[in-house]
Amino acid sequence: MIRIGIIGYGYWGPNLVRNFFAADDCVIKSVAETRSDRLLHLQKTFPSIKGFKDASDIINDPEIDAVIIATPVYTHFALAKKALSEGKHVLIEKPMASSVMEAQILINLAAQKKLLLMVDHTFLYTGAVEKMKQLVDEEKLGTIKYLDSTRINLGLFQPDINVLWDLAPHDISILNYIIAEEPYSVNATGVTHTNNRIENIAYLTVNYSSGFIAHFNCSWTSPVKVRMMLVGGDEKMILYNDLEPTEKIKVYDTSYKHSTNEERNSVLVDYRTGDIHVPKLATTEALLGMANNFIRSIMGVEQPRSCSQLGLDVVKILEASSKSIKNSGCEILVEPIDKKVNSQFLKAVV
Amino acid sequence: MIRIGIIGYGYWGPNLVRNFFAADDCVIKSVAETRSDRLLHLQKTFPSIKGFKDASDIINDPEIDAVIIATPVYTHFALAKKALSEGKHVLIEKPMASSVMEAQILINLAAQKKLLLMVDHTFLYTGAVEKMKQLVDEEKLGTIKYLDSTRINLGLFQPDINVLWDLAPHDISILNYIIAEEPYSVNATGVTHTNNRIENIAYLTVNYSSGFIAHFNCSWTSPVKVRMMLVGGDEKMILYNDLEPTEKIKVYDTSYKHSTNEERNSVLVDYRTGDIHVPKLATTEALLGMANNFIRSIMGVEQPRSCSQLGLDVVKILEASSKSIKNSGCEILVEPIDKKVNSQFLKAVV
Amino acid sequence: MIRIGIIGYGYWGPNLVRNFFAADDCVIKSVAETRSDRLLHLQKTFPSIKGFKDASDIINDPEIDAVIIATPVYTHFALAKKALSEGKHVLIEKPMASSVMEAQILINLAAQKKLLLMVDHTFLYTGAVEKMKQLVDEEKLGTIKYLDSTRINLGLFQPDINVLWDLAPHDISILNYIIAEEPYSVNATGVTHTNNRIENIAYLTVNYSSGFIAHFNCSWTSPVKVRMMLVGGDEKMILYNDLEPTEKIKVYDTSYKHSTNEERNSVLVDYRTGDIHVPKLATTEALLGMANNFIRSIMGVEQPRSCSQLGLDVVKILEASSKSIKNSGCEILVEPIDKKVNSQFLKAVV
Amino acid sequence: MIRIGIIGYGYWGPNLVRNFFAADDCVIKSVAETRSDRLLHLQKTFPSIKGFKDASDIINDPEIDAVIIATPVYTHFALAKKALSEGKHVLIEKPMASSVMEAQILINLAAQKKLLLMVDHTFLYTGAVEKMKQLVDEEKLGTIKYLDSTRINLGLFQPDINVLWDLAPHDISILNYIIAEEPYSVNATGVTHTNNRIENIAYLTVNYSSGFIAHFNCSWTSPVKVRMMLVGGDEKMILYNDLEPTEKIKVYDTSYKHSTNEERNSVLVDYRTGDIHVPKLATTEALLGMANNFIRSIMGVEQPRSCSQLGLDVVKILEASSKSIKNSGCEILVEPIDKKVNSQFLKAVV
Repeated sequence: MIRIGIIGYGYWGPNLVRNFFAADDCVIKSVAETRSDRLLHLQKTFPSIKGFKDASDIINDPEIDAVIIATPVYTHFALAKKALSEGKHVLIEKPMASSVMEAQILINLAAQKKLLLMVDHTFLYTGAVEKMKQLVDEEKLGTIKYLDSTRINLGLFQPDINVLWDLAPHDISILNYIIAEEPYSVNATGVTHTNNRIENIAYLTVNYSSGFIAHFNCSWTSPVKVRMMLVGGDEKMILYNDLEPTEKIKVYDTSYKHSTNEERNSVLVDYRTGDIHVPKLATTEALLGMANNFIRSIMGVEQPRSCSQLGLDVVKILEASSKSIKNSGCEILVEPIDKKVNSQFLKAVV
Repeated sequence: MIRIGIIGYGYWGPNLVRNFFAADDCVIKSVAETRSDRLLHLQKTFPSIKGFKDASDIINDPEIDAVIIATPVYTHFALAKKALSEGKHVLIEKPMASSVMEAQILINLAAQKKLLLMVDHTFLYTGAVEKMKQLVDEEKLGTIKYLDSTRINLGLFQPDINVLWDLAPHDISILNYIIAEEPYSVNATGVTHTNNRIENIAYLTVNYSSGFIAHFNCSWTSPVKVRMMLVGGDEKMILYNDLEPTEKIKVYDTSYKHSTNEERNSVLVDYRTGDIHVPKLATTEALLGMANNFIRSIMGVEQPRSCSQLGLDVVKILEASSKSIKNSGCEILVEPIDKKVNSQFLKAVV
Repeated sequence: MIRIGIIGYGYWGPNLVRNFFAADDCVIKSVAETRSDRLLHLQKTFPSIKGFKDASDIINDPEIDAVIIATPVYTHFALAKKALSEGKHVLIEKPMASSVMEAQILINLAAQKKLLLMVDHTFLYTGAVEKMKQLVDEEKLGTIKYLDSTRINLGLFQPDINVLWDLAPHDISILNYIIAEEPYSVNATGVTHTNNRIENIAYLTVNYSSGFIAHFNCSWTSPVKVRMMLVGGDEKMILYNDLEPTEKIKVYDTSYKHSTNEERNSVLVDYRTGDIHVPKLATTEALLGMANNFIRSIMGVEQPRSCSQLGLDVVKILEASSKSIKNSGCEILVEPIDKKVNSQFLKAVV
Repeated sequence: MIRIGIIGYGYWGPNLVRNFFAADDCVIKSVAETRSDRLLHLQKTFPSIKGFKDASDIINDPEIDAVIIATPVYTHFALAKKALSEGKHVLIEKPMASSVMEAQILINLAAQKKLLLMVDHTFLYTGAVEKMKQLVDEEKLGTIKYLDSTRINLGLFQPDINVLWDLAPHDISILNYIIAEEPYSVNATGVTHTNNRIENIAYLTVNYSSGFIAHFNCSWTSPVKVRMMLVGGDEKMILYNDLEPTEKIKVYDTSYKHSTNEERNSVLVDYRTGDIHVPKLATTEALLGMANNFIRSIMGVEQPRSCSQLGLDVVKILEASSKSIKNSGCEILVEPIDKKVNSQFLKAVV
């Protein structure tokens, strides 16, 4: 029975409590939250959970095995570092940290302490993303050529992070989960409509050596909610519309081939359009899947899907995007990613 | 009665013929087209129109008053220059020319010859764009903050121009028509999935000094057709979905205001969401509106809406986008636009 | 503080518990449910509520003021009668009872005992229905000509009631809520695809003397979920699509007028189509609104919206529909409705 | 080369002219139309076609082989009878005639004269209906349980026929084309909102001995256009949305099975929901398919798909629906249909 403490009971906290309540082999012992009204709300709904004002009451509690951090991004690093130092397994809300360096330090600390460090990229546990991953892994799409994602809405302007750091982690985590190739560089542009220099609209292109390209359109100021992703291969293409209640994934049997016409010195492109397939998706709640995966990874019986390395990869792209925006959209290289670090933890833990 | 010759009878030619047939005060005398099967098709459908293989038969015909050029982009300049030199009024398919220099030369020549030079940016004549223009002009949206457009489909790969030059002229012409501010710079990224170095997916950001931003997402390789534009002001926002049969324009009574909280050193943003309004739109065929505007501008009784200056402005952004793509997405300045040139024609002609 | 007991903790029970938990001026004391696993689920989620196997433990509890009945329809009458006899206020799930006679007896008993009897027609408390009621009351639609509703889905085949008794109460309650005129007769057809003679697809027409007509299409065997209602007046028309996340109500400024052309001995109908208006709707949870209305009606500070008379009116139409189906679709008269009975309670209670 | 004359050049006439122009092995010689402005329009667009005021000029023309009748319904019988008497093959717009007796007389006359008599039920030639027919014929849906169709819009109020006679022929022709079983009876209800006793909203249920049921919802007074049909089998179900530009047909792998639970004396129904399949459809213009089928049936090289027998079957249901409406929705039997008559023509002609 893994004993859990949760730091932060804001917007996402109640979802975490509800799902770790429902998860197997764990119990939520305590929640820390600075705002009294939120603590009161907790006590009314879940009288069995202890509430604290101070995160230390969780981090220093020897009866806590794992700490979940659901606080603003700029606090992730300090809290996670303390918790790992105290020997706790740690789950952090996305994005993992405010910089690549912070994320790297946490990964190293976790590896050294032989503790699990995971990031809550919930989307990786949805039936839709699982199906996309499966279709890609089974090479049903052919060679994948592009991923294009739009995630716009009337959104809460965050005081500390821009719209890419707020919304794109969802899409970048999906990108990193289904696409094996490592990104080469990014370009990003954006604009702020407040006077705090934090972009509320931003566009991100991620470039790859192979010719694969990914693009992300994020906004807090759209009157309509759009959550649409296209993943295009040369054999099939996927439309993922997360707002569809049941038909979230459509697989288009659409392909194109090009050939060079040497006579005319031109390129000919042939289309083939065919049927569309709408696969049935698993409907279990994604956050519950993540909770179970976290607990079972601590127990050593599963591998963490939303692992710290994936969390780091997301931060690498975000950090590069911020540099690009500051440099008027110039191309910024993404450092190659060392996939070995995280697997060390697994060996150590298992 | 304005006597018209049309050069090019490919995909768009029949639409031009049909609509100039329906337009007032003009008659289509002849059509030039190199492909015999297309000429045959013309003769079967419109026996009253003469068909030629050679464009010169139209340009040199003293009984032709106006020439319409509906050929591949790289031929626009030479054909338009010849026609203007022969004293013909000219209508060119979008985009106007392959470069800013070409477009500028044509504009100067037309001004010097006191001839009308227009570009067929058909969308400016749709009920939807007219309504957007009206709402912007009446300042119903407040200060306009962004324009975001997605125009993707399974599209014909063009042999001579990339996807931005092919599709974005529609959206950029709308941008230039409804937004008075001149663009400051562009960033563009893209990728080619053939081996001819012509991008089939591309993304364009247009930056403005005021903080307004425009973004264009164009693709020939999307399995689904999307034609969606958002225009956001701080008082109201518009969703323009061109695929909706009747409800193309939705006006969201959604606004946001920000204030600085000096205590917390943070920016607060307040939303207001209200009703949505779907205005009834004019349903006359856009191309017919353009045809009538062309004829009536020659007659001196109207001003050309889709004027050569607007056509040039579109080419300026396109040319800058190509430079940006070649320079790995770097910011490229857009030269300031001289709005006076085109108005000279009008004075001269009237 | 009104003390509540709930009988039945199946599909709907948890929603009732959650919302009466959130309602003011009341406390849920106990829940009765025959299935042990459901009781266990209750205890785990709401440890403060007592669970019983036997409904009598609630009905006979002198510390209970109000009883909520959320059991199969055929048990409504006996349970409600007992509860009223024991001096409890009663809220019954829709439909109120299995027959007009049962419903009438309950109404009379409640009036005699000066107790509140209400039916849980939750839809009357939605922002969408409130808006429709408001538009109708303000005579924005002109003379209302028709109401047409489709409520189809893959639905649980009920063992005791047909699809009209299961699904149509939602729509008929809305009909009765917004349309003042009393129905004159009904026609109904349907079919059963099982061998238990309980229709899983059925169609109901409700006829009115004025020429207004209502039609209901209900099915448990549709592969797609549709919840769409049209309310058409001669000045404006409403489309109510309950599956739209935010734009549930669209008001079409569409009207038609007819005149008689005496020369041609024919009728001319003129259309006018105009803008569409999508009003912002209240987003409070409907069931919470119903819960508060129930409590406040007991307290005598509000009138019951989903009152027993409306519940009876729904049953009258359902009973007539069953007769029509049994008589091959023949027209069955609906008895006139006595609106005075329910108001007696109000006078008595206040 | 079949020589064609067309009677009636109103709303549908130009479509007929355009498609018979494009069809093989035929030539349109003349068109008759009483309204001068319509004739003028014809002459301007198709100068090669002769225009007459009087239908006799076509019917009596010995150089005409086939007559197409596109006039108001009440004139169909007299015109078709005359044309058949004069030895012309005949194509009639839907619905075939004003009564079963009229339709039967025409069929008999055509058989006796060994002439082709066809009805223009255009929908039978759409890719969507062809696909549904194929899926049904291949028994992909299992046993078909229901067909449910909604065809509503702001429609022209017809002066001589009600909304069922105007709109339902489309849906009933599809019903008769894909469902082999003969209908047993109908119920219909409706209402008129003008004072000419012609229903502008009507509902039709068609009953079958096997338990299959069909239902049609037709209206001229809906603010939104809906053209949706469900065809449900116990193995798969089809959603046919004719307003979808490309995804008109969706095949749901949804099935249900019922079993009798003898212990509980109840029926258990088990669902299975699976993937959805959106087949690619033929995109040739339906009316051109019909035109070619008419010509090739005259030539004896094809069988008429939209044959006179199917046209008669549609009228039988319509006539019964009118009787039902006049009799307050009572069940009206549909006479058994004699499938042999039409095949006589085929034998005679081949």
